[in-house]
Amino acid sequence: MSNSNIRHALDVTREADFAAWYQAVIAQADMAEESGVRGCMVIKPWGYGIWERIQRVLDDAIKATGHENCYFPLFIPLSFFAKEAEHVEGFAKEMAVVTHHRLKSENGTLVVDPEAKLEEPLVVRPTSETVIGQAMSRWVQSWRDLPLLINQWANVVRWEMRTRMFLRTSEFLWQEGHTAHADRDDAMVETLKMLEVYRSFAEDVLAMPVIAGEKPENERFPGAVATYSIEAMMQDGKALQAGTSHYLGTGFAEAADIRYQDQNGQQALCHTTSWGVSTRMIGGVIMVHGDDDGLRVPPRIAPHQIVILPMLRDKDGDAEILDYCEKIRMTLTDHDAFREPVRVLLDSKPGKVAQKRWDWVRKGAPIIVEVGPRDMENGKVAVLRRDRMWREDGKPDFEFQERDDFLFCAAGMLEDIQTTLFEQAKQRRDENIRADIVDFDGLTAYFDGSDKPGWVKIAWSRPTGAALDAVVEKLKALKLTIRNTPIGEDRPEAACFFTGEDSVETIYVGRSY
Amino acid sequence: MSNSNIRHALDVTREADFAAWYQAVIAQADMAEESGVRGCMVIKPWGYGIWERIQRVLDDAIKATGHENCYFPLFIPLSFFAKEAEHVEGFAKEMAVVTHHRLKSENGTLVVDPEAKLEEPLVVRPTSETVIGQAMSRWVQSWRDLPLLINQWANVVRWEMRTRMFLRTSEFLWQEGHTAHADRDDAMVETLKMLEVYRSFAEDVLAMPVIAGEKPENERFPGAVATYSIEAMMQDGKALQAGTSHYLGTGFAEAADIRYQDQNGQQALCHTTSWGVSTRMIGGVIMVHGDDDGLRVPPRIAPHQIVILPMLRDKDGDAEILDYCEKIRMTLTDHDAFREPVRVLLDSKPGKVAQKRWDWVRKGAPIIVEVGPRDMENGKVAVLRRDRMWREDGKPDFEFQERDDFLFCAAGMLEDIQTTLFEQAKQRRDENIRADIVDFDGLTAYFDGSDKPGWVKIAWSRPTGAALDAVVEKLKALKLTIRNTPIGEDRPEAACFFTGEDSVETIYVGRSY
Repeated sequence: MSNSNIRHALDVTREADFAAWYQAVIAQADMAEESGVRGCMVIKPWGYGIWERIQRVLDDAIKATGHENCYFPLFIPLSFFAKEAEHVEGFAKEMAVVTHHRLKSENGTLVVDPEAKLEEPLVVRPTSETVIGQAMSRWVQSWRDLPLLINQWANVVRWEMRTRMFLRTSEFLWQEGHTAHADRDDAMVETLKMLEVYRSFAEDVLAMPVIAGEKPENERFPGAVATYSIEAMMQDGKALQAGTSHYLGTGFAEAADIRYQDQNGQQALCHTTSWGVSTRMIGGVIMVHGDDDGLRVPPRIAPHQIVILPMLRDKDGDAEILDYCEKIRMTLTDHDAFREPVRVLLDSKPGKVAQKRWDWVRKGAPIIVEVGPRDMENGKVAVLRRDRMWREDGKPDFEFQERDDFLFCAAGMLEDIQTTLFEQAKQRRDENIRADIVDFDGLTAYFDGSDKPGWVKIAWSRPTGAALDAVVEKLKALKLTIRNTPIGEDRPEAACFFTGEDSVETIYVGRSY
Repeated sequence: MSNSNIRHALDVTREADFAAWYQAVIAQADMAEESGVRGCMVIKPWGYGIWERIQRVLDDAIKATGHENCYFPLFIPLSFFAKEAEHVEGFAKEMAVVTHHRLKSENGTLVVDPEAKLEEPLVVRPTSETVIGQAMSRWVQSWRDLPLLINQWANVVRWEMRTRMFLRTSEFLWQEGHTAHADRDDAMVETLKMLEVYRSFAEDVLAMPVIAGEKPENERFPGAVATYSIEAMMQDGKALQAGTSHYLGTGFAEAADIRYQDQNGQQALCHTTSWGVSTRMIGGVIMVHGDDDGLRVPPRIAPHQIVILPMLRDKDGDAEILDYCEKIRMTLTDHDAFREPVRVLLDSKPGKVAQKRWDWVRKGAPIIVEVGPRDMENGKVAVLRRDRMWREDGKPDFEFQERDDFLFCAAGMLEDIQTTLFEQAKQRRDENIRADIVDFDGLTAYFDGSDKPGWVKIAWSRPTGAALDAVVEKLKALKLTIRNTPIGEDRPEAACFFTGEDSVETIYVGRSY
């Protein structure tokens, strides 16, 4: 729906260069920036405010399902990994390693003191299975201690060669849940329960439609028996894995010696799970909801849901307008949206209203309200919904409303914007899933030919081992991967796209971040 | 007030061995434990829940004073510290240093890959002045950008030789505020404003009376022009520095090149501040409020303010009791204490009530409510206030209350417990401040002779340089330090205790953690 009358707020469009557009949104919405430290970003107030909202809402959901928060050490002794490395094929080794504990001055410069070498190197946690497993082995003695349901909010480090803000950074912020159970069934219930918490969080809070399903065996977390994910489609058609939940079987329990005495007095190994989401989700929010004017933040995670901009002129009348706006702010704050007080900012910083308006458009505040002297006299406000930016004539679509009407409707408007963002994203996602491609030539034609190809839904016989490897190789040539097997779908009628055997389930195939 | 009828819940008393008692509280209240990683602890749910409450309330206060949260990298390139080290005398050098970014398998074991050596070593942040200063130098251009008010919640690492849980650990959690201002006055207002935020938080939320004041020049943060602290007295009479606020002058701005164009178009250096509190505060809460039965958590930071214990007998009647208790829980949750919903746990886990009661006593839940079948029939509850544990006859001081009376009074009771804890701590603190010691012999006699000496208040002429060093040395022989100069006290009449010169202010002297 491009309209040549409109002059968009960003100077690069999604259409022209999606990757450059993504970076532009992050910069122009003032969310984050490069830090000068390799692979690490600085998360600025607007980006961090979104993360704080994500934390708050998701933490409530994690606690409501019976988990408790703990904090475990940042550093993990190298020896803790030894058993895991032995036990786990594909154990990732790109980690930051602390080897010394002191600096010293030498010829006027600062150097690492070679005499302060650690006896045992310390790894900066890439994830905490090992150190939490050790704690679990102390904490679990009897069946009465199970299930043990732990969560941690923390920074983790994985030495990434190619980084991209929010999507893949050497250091990132996340939550990692770790649980221990008496048997497979209980651990599987937990694994799927947390997958559902993530699905519901992504869809209801981030307004980001996702497919919740199981990853193929070649995409499992190393050492996991089963890995589940939520997969979201970005506006360039690529998939983003936005959260994972793993059933780890008894392998990690064996490595960390997590055993319990069962009700018959017998020693048994625990079955463990782990699950996590990270600041990567913010990258997903940008690429699902952003437009050519910048970010659009779903109201439930917007640090400010409504921004009020008074038109100030450094004159005597300013105090009166500020007072009028402050009353609007206070009244709005008394209303609830999504069962929480509405979050309102009265932005009275110096600067021109037009400049400030476009700053907030680029940041994606859901509702912008402007108030000038005449509006005040007439008891009106000018309201711009971020999901309805433009009129046909290329002007921002401000609606002049009676102040009291707006006050009455604002919370409902926020809920409507939340729904609209979800519906728009879902429609786009659904339109870009092809279920009518029946052979590999068709697949090749689609992915080679289409400008922004989406996902292809395929009947699947669930081959394993070498047969799966062959499929994976074939897909790789098209830069494709199997995303996941959606949960709760009927068994397809068609034969398996790849093996020709009877299908047992469906898979989604696509390009990904 | 020892009463030989009482059998306390811990097996070591404060009187017998304060240090052992401290460790016992942490273990028996299930707050934290050694992690197996040198100098790092695992913070368990009850300890971490207290930290989450501290974060929530303090974060609100930090935001209410206009600060915004950001997140900066964990790793700081060695070169970032070079200028600071040059510039700052006493620059601390005990830091964890990352030198490699990969592990590899060698002869079946996991080792650091020597080929993956970093070009520049990365220091794990001990504090973030350098990396935030670099960002400020990008963010501040004009006087319009000032003041810049930033806060960060993060983990930091300082390589400590002797560690003690919560009080001094190699890794700890904290918040660090960093601000930039146009001039000295504005920066000093900020420094003292945040000191006051800390004082009020310590006293009103942690119920921990503190002296807010300026540290002597030998105790300043390296590079600071002035350092302020809040100092709390522990039950062994020692001081705990529980928070600091620094006016950094222009030195850090010079090192990081934080300059702005003023209203006349001239370039000027910013004046910066920094301020922080950490998980150390939890150590303070233990040593201020704990007793021989364990921890006593001030209601405002208690993860559960009221714990309901149903007497279950694995019988048919259990469902009815649980239902009765659940109704009590829900009604209590509808009440507000400290302008927030009351936090109530119905602990229906398996186990004997007596066992669970003593667990919650040791954890220091402010109110414990027990409900048995007869209580239910009579519409009563048995209420134990953690600040009034024992009757004269050595039995726990349960009060049998009408259920509805309790529901009506519970929130007020929590507020009363909060006040009581503060008043008890303040009375003890004040009783242990001596203002009547007039010479060094008196000081020596007091600190050598007294079992648990407190602080001594002394008239002070504020000597500097060598004269101050002489005092510091003299105090050191008695293991004493100058804690701080309280803000807002009258100039004392007496001559300076140490120099005999005219006094300009008062100082507190004591032993410390």
